[in-house]
Amino acid sequence: MTTGTIPTTMRASVLLKQGVIEMQERPVPTPGDGEVLVRVASVGVCGSDVHYYKHGRIGDMVVTAPIVLGHEVSGTVVGVGRGVSEDRVGDRVAIDPQVPCRQCRQCKTGRSNLCPFMEFYATPPFDGTFCDYVTAPADQAYTVPDSLSDESAALLEPLSVGLWAAHKADVGPGDQVLIAGAGPIGAMCAQAVRARGATDVVVTDFVDSRRERITSFGATRALHPVQDADEIAAIRADAFIDCSGATPAVLSGIASTRGGGTVVLVGLGAEEMPIPVQLIATREINLTGVFRYIDTWPRGIALTSAGTVHLDDMVTARYPLEQVEDALNADSDPLSMKAVVVVNPA
Amino acid sequence: MTTGTIPTTMRASVLLKQGVIEMQERPVPTPGDGEVLVRVASVGVCGSDVHYYKHGRIGDMVVTAPIVLGHEVSGTVVGVGRGVSEDRVGDRVAIDPQVPCRQCRQCKTGRSNLCPFMEFYATPPFDGTFCDYVTAPADQAYTVPDSLSDESAALLEPLSVGLWAAHKADVGPGDQVLIAGAGPIGAMCAQAVRARGATDVVVTDFVDSRRERITSFGATRALHPVQDADEIAAIRADAFIDCSGATPAVLSGIASTRGGGTVVLVGLGAEEMPIPVQLIATREINLTGVFRYIDTWPRGIALTSAGTVHLDDMVTARYPLEQVEDALNADSDPLSMKAVVVVNPA
Amino acid sequence: MTTGTIPTTMRASVLLKQGVIEMQERPVPTPGDGEVLVRVASVGVCGSDVHYYKHGRIGDMVVTAPIVLGHEVSGTVVGVGRGVSEDRVGDRVAIDPQVPCRQCRQCKTGRSNLCPFMEFYATPPFDGTFCDYVTAPADQAYTVPDSLSDESAALLEPLSVGLWAAHKADVGPGDQVLIAGAGPIGAMCAQAVRARGATDVVVTDFVDSRRERITSFGATRALHPVQDADEIAAIRADAFIDCSGATPAVLSGIASTRGGGTVVLVGLGAEEMPIPVQLIATREINLTGVFRYIDTWPRGIALTSAGTVHLDDMVTARYPLEQVEDALNADSDPLSMKAVVVVNPA
Amino acid sequence: MTTGTIPTTMRASVLLKQGVIEMQERPVPTPGDGEVLVRVASVGVCGSDVHYYKHGRIGDMVVTAPIVLGHEVSGTVVGVGRGVSEDRVGDRVAIDPQVPCRQCRQCKTGRSNLCPFMEFYATPPFDGTFCDYVTAPADQAYTVPDSLSDESAALLEPLSVGLWAAHKADVGPGDQVLIAGAGPIGAMCAQAVRARGATDVVVTDFVDSRRERITSFGATRALHPVQDADEIAAIRADAFIDCSGATPAVLSGIASTRGGGTVVLVGLGAEEMPIPVQLIATREINLTGVFRYIDTWPRGIALTSAGTVHLDDMVTARYPLEQVEDALNADSDPLSMKAVVVVNPA
Repeated sequence: MTTGTIPTTMRASVLLKQGVIEMQERPVPTPGDGEVLVRVASVGVCGSDVHYYKHGRIGDMVVTAPIVLGHEVSGTVVGVGRGVSEDRVGDRVAIDPQVPCRQCRQCKTGRSNLCPFMEFYATPPFDGTFCDYVTAPADQAYTVPDSLSDESAALLEPLSVGLWAAHKADVGPGDQVLIAGAGPIGAMCAQAVRARGATDVVVTDFVDSRRERITSFGATRALHPVQDADEIAAIRADAFIDCSGATPAVLSGIASTRGGGTVVLVGLGAEEMPIPVQLIATREINLTGVFRYIDTWPRGIALTSAGTVHLDDMVTARYPLEQVEDALNADSDPLSMKAVVVVNPA
Repeated sequence: MTTGTIPTTMRASVLLKQGVIEMQERPVPTPGDGEVLVRVASVGVCGSDVHYYKHGRIGDMVVTAPIVLGHEVSGTVVGVGRGVSEDRVGDRVAIDPQVPCRQCRQCKTGRSNLCPFMEFYATPPFDGTFCDYVTAPADQAYTVPDSLSDESAALLEPLSVGLWAAHKADVGPGDQVLIAGAGPIGAMCAQAVRARGATDVVVTDFVDSRRERITSFGATRALHPVQDADEIAAIRADAFIDCSGATPAVLSGIASTRGGGTVVLVGLGAEEMPIPVQLIATREINLTGVFRYIDTWPRGIALTSAGTVHLDDMVTARYPLEQVEDALNADSDPLSMKAVVVVNPA
Repeated sequence: MTTGTIPTTMRASVLLKQGVIEMQERPVPTPGDGEVLVRVASVGVCGSDVHYYKHGRIGDMVVTAPIVLGHEVSGTVVGVGRGVSEDRVGDRVAIDPQVPCRQCRQCKTGRSNLCPFMEFYATPPFDGTFCDYVTAPADQAYTVPDSLSDESAALLEPLSVGLWAAHKADVGPGDQVLIAGAGPIGAMCAQAVRARGATDVVVTDFVDSRRERITSFGATRALHPVQDADEIAAIRADAFIDCSGATPAVLSGIASTRGGGTVVLVGLGAEEMPIPVQLIATREINLTGVFRYIDTWPRGIALTSAGTVHLDDMVTARYPLEQVEDALNADSDPLSMKAVVVVNPA
Repeated sequence: MTTGTIPTTMRASVLLKQGVIEMQERPVPTPGDGEVLVRVASVGVCGSDVHYYKHGRIGDMVVTAPIVLGHEVSGTVVGVGRGVSEDRVGDRVAIDPQVPCRQCRQCKTGRSNLCPFMEFYATPPFDGTFCDYVTAPADQAYTVPDSLSDESAALLEPLSVGLWAAHKADVGPGDQVLIAGAGPIGAMCAQAVRARGATDVVVTDFVDSRRERITSFGATRALHPVQDADEIAAIRADAFIDCSGATPAVLSGIASTRGGGTVVLVGLGAEEMPIPVQLIATREINLTGVFRYIDTWPRGIALTSAGTVHLDDMVTARYPLEQVEDALNADSDPLSMKAVVVVNPA
């Protein structure tokens, strides 16, 4: 069942191969069993989109065929598949882009983000959301209140990364947290740890303007990795969250983590790093990383609606669907906080 | 070692027996090994103080000899015992009133609040803090920053109850929490769960003015237990915290707790209650209670300094040491949020 | 796809109404998408089967139409639905009888046992397994090794209750655990806590022969609730697991739980009990219950295969499908450990 | 208070400097407040003793003055300091060699093993237990039952390492655990994870005889790191515990850890290792290490008494106090499981 106004074809911004984007006309997808069809409103540009565009791959995941990028997405339900209530039509939604198998042991024990059979927007061979219409499992399309803008709704995805990192870091009220990297993910993590009650949130970054800006997004202190090296070295944080992917930042952050504290790797950099394992052991530091997220949309919607987290302010540039390439290039600028592709304006 | 100005005797407000308070002159105590001597600044009045005053006992703990009440205390270090650095002299401090044995299995495994050998201010036979000077283990006298008033420092004790309850309730960002009772402890719990990111904090109370007031102390909704019964019954909170001690409130709160949610009993009322154990089982609700707290002063100081929690605003009346009796009577008024005895004004 | 030998009709033992069982010929079910068709081997008789048979209801769940009882089931895969590999045909399996929705927040966060949309064998209006063929989601039909008998495989279901209770009780190596009730579930719990390293496992029961027998199934001590009341009162167990449903046993067990310990309600008795809430609070006891289980079949299969847990020895009587009524009556005997209906002998 | 027969001087085996051991006559120590005086029975030889003897240092901890080695110790209480009941005299005890400050935040929150003010036997500048008499805090001298031999009681210390590693690894019933290194600590870990219900315990080691032997100490499979590389690579263990300190073993073990699994570093090798951080992140593996232990003596005593863990069988050689040097050399032999110095035979 769909509303009467759905066309049969739609616009799609397609990555043909590394560095080549083309607008295409494609068939509007049909929602399968348990799925909704969503008319896309806004799509945030993620570093992974940029990486696929510029390098044609992320690690083992290689773009071998044309693919639609984009996975930070909001929109409106315009159709439902079998088994989904027609009441969903008209819902403004934000989509958790994960489609786990729901049957493996990881899925059944609350670790569906680690499902080996996961399908995910814009991860080869699955198309993403830089297009007019997408389908999603009905339960992964979360209804958002009117108070949330389309852009905020789209940015619930990167917020989810921050919420999950803060969860993994086990941040509690009154904690001190060190974050490396004042980009969009660093800002999401800073806001997420503040939402959990962290009171001393130190963010490091080399770029002056990024350090200045981050104090509006959760940081209580912003430090330069080299110029403020002594101040950083004196820290014994309850948790360290790396959003830089830079080996020196990770090593510095581990050294600044207290005994029994937690290190969470969010930024992806080198495949391997010379980790000080004896320090890890003698301080019983817990080192882990994040891979997507679980149950973060309900929390993100609540936090954003309550004003605990601010997402709208993070948008630094907007582009129509025809200018996805510009958006991809913009987002690689260190001064860009968040570029958004406005596919269908409200 | 002590500073030169310490007298040999001091004022103490003593509960001679149920309902009878007398000002006495008593010797100033001497700090033992590992202890500090603290000149008392402010002392909050707790419901337990009122209970001892009015009933002469709390359960098995009976006032059989004169006792100094009061245990929510701030002050200034004026002397140190053997093994404590003289640098502590001059520190403005808030005191965690627990003196656990530090040797039993509970103490050694991070559950010192359950130490069976605990000594605690104003719990028979141990004297409390309605007097000019008290001793405390140096590590339990936490230095507070200048930004915290003496009164806020004293109120870190009831805040600790709220922080520990929120910890036991395992409240997370975006959670919905139901709290019964809009008195001072309910307000501390409401602020504590907000500090952990709860976004829907529903507090119930029969008294109109308490419901109105609680929205300034963390509550996002304030409901009447009877008039709003339907709205309460529709709740499926992530956590329910009872600060009322009222059996109907506890039963209503359990019914409004989601599957897998947590119920924390803070208010003490009847010895036993007709708990719906089948509901507890089929919803796998975790029901527990709080007994004091652990590691809450560092967190409380950080949260109050950061402005996440507001304590000064909770003080509704002040009394000099000579008027402890008035303070005890004031605090039993449901419209009193927090009475404070200003023992030695700043 | 199914193997060639499947008939179109089968035998089914049907509870027509309270107290009335009838053998019927019914159509063999067809496996749906993602399902397997299983030829039933053995079915354990559970107290809930007996309760439906004798009382026609369990709480709100009422038998209003004929229903097939039985849910502790093993068998062999003889057919598969769409999306399931034909390689499954021939697998000897034990079935986790839970069919959660996999889409609600409980399911997505690792609490699928609390799914409000759960379908479950032999819970009205869903038919159970006292019949020749049943269907199940392929991922809930766990392949068992040859070393496990059909009966052991069926008894993985009640073992799951024990494993989940021990998990909820958070039993660790060297712990002391008190268990009330030496019936089949008490025995499963005793074996489960032993598997987690509990070294002092005290089981209480009024029946002499049950106390004697339980020492072969995990108990290190078996005590009489009245005659050994002093010895029980002296216990301060790390965890107390009630498998009796008897209010006095629950109250006695709570009193014998240490500060910070856990109480898990497994046996269902009265709707509500006069729980000593002040004791719960001052000892910070965690009281909860179990409702089914999660991820217990892989663990149960591993433990039984390794010889850590013994299930075959628990079978005290066997009945053909035509004698389900006798089996139901047998299992209500306190001296019956476990009755098994051998639907299709190996 | 001490028993009447305590001499004023005693034998002590002293490491004068790297590689030089000398028997000396030293004064018998006097138990301080809260301490017991223990006549030493047995002392296990630890790899750290061997390391100090052969290298004169372990990392930053340097032997700059003569020191008594040894810290795995059992004995009998022969005297008590102030505040300790004389009833302790005569107790056969095993000593937890940790003397934390009990006042810092780590100590107060259940992480006393990470106390920065820790004093520890045989860690410069603190003397150890290769001598006739030692003092210890009374609460750290755990009474052992008659069923435990002096040697088993001494080996509760290395067992504690295994128990703590298994705790950190969060091993549960039916888990698969991979352990690198079949030496004494590997054996302790293998027994510890079995005690928690692990059913597939794979231990790797290059030495044939160590692999053979380890199947008597908890391993269910023993594999050669190179010859069985394929079998090891196919593993996706719930937990990997490294007891080898060998970088290749650590890297191989991480690769064989399942998504969401845990890696615990017990063996100390290189200061830093090239850890595959992207794999850590995409599998959300938790990597940590152990530094001593908490609350392991009560558990170890219970497990050894119950026969769940076997310690006596691990002793491969015994030496009198005069032959500590031989014991230190013996223990560095890969075929030595555990050398024990019998200071005062029973």
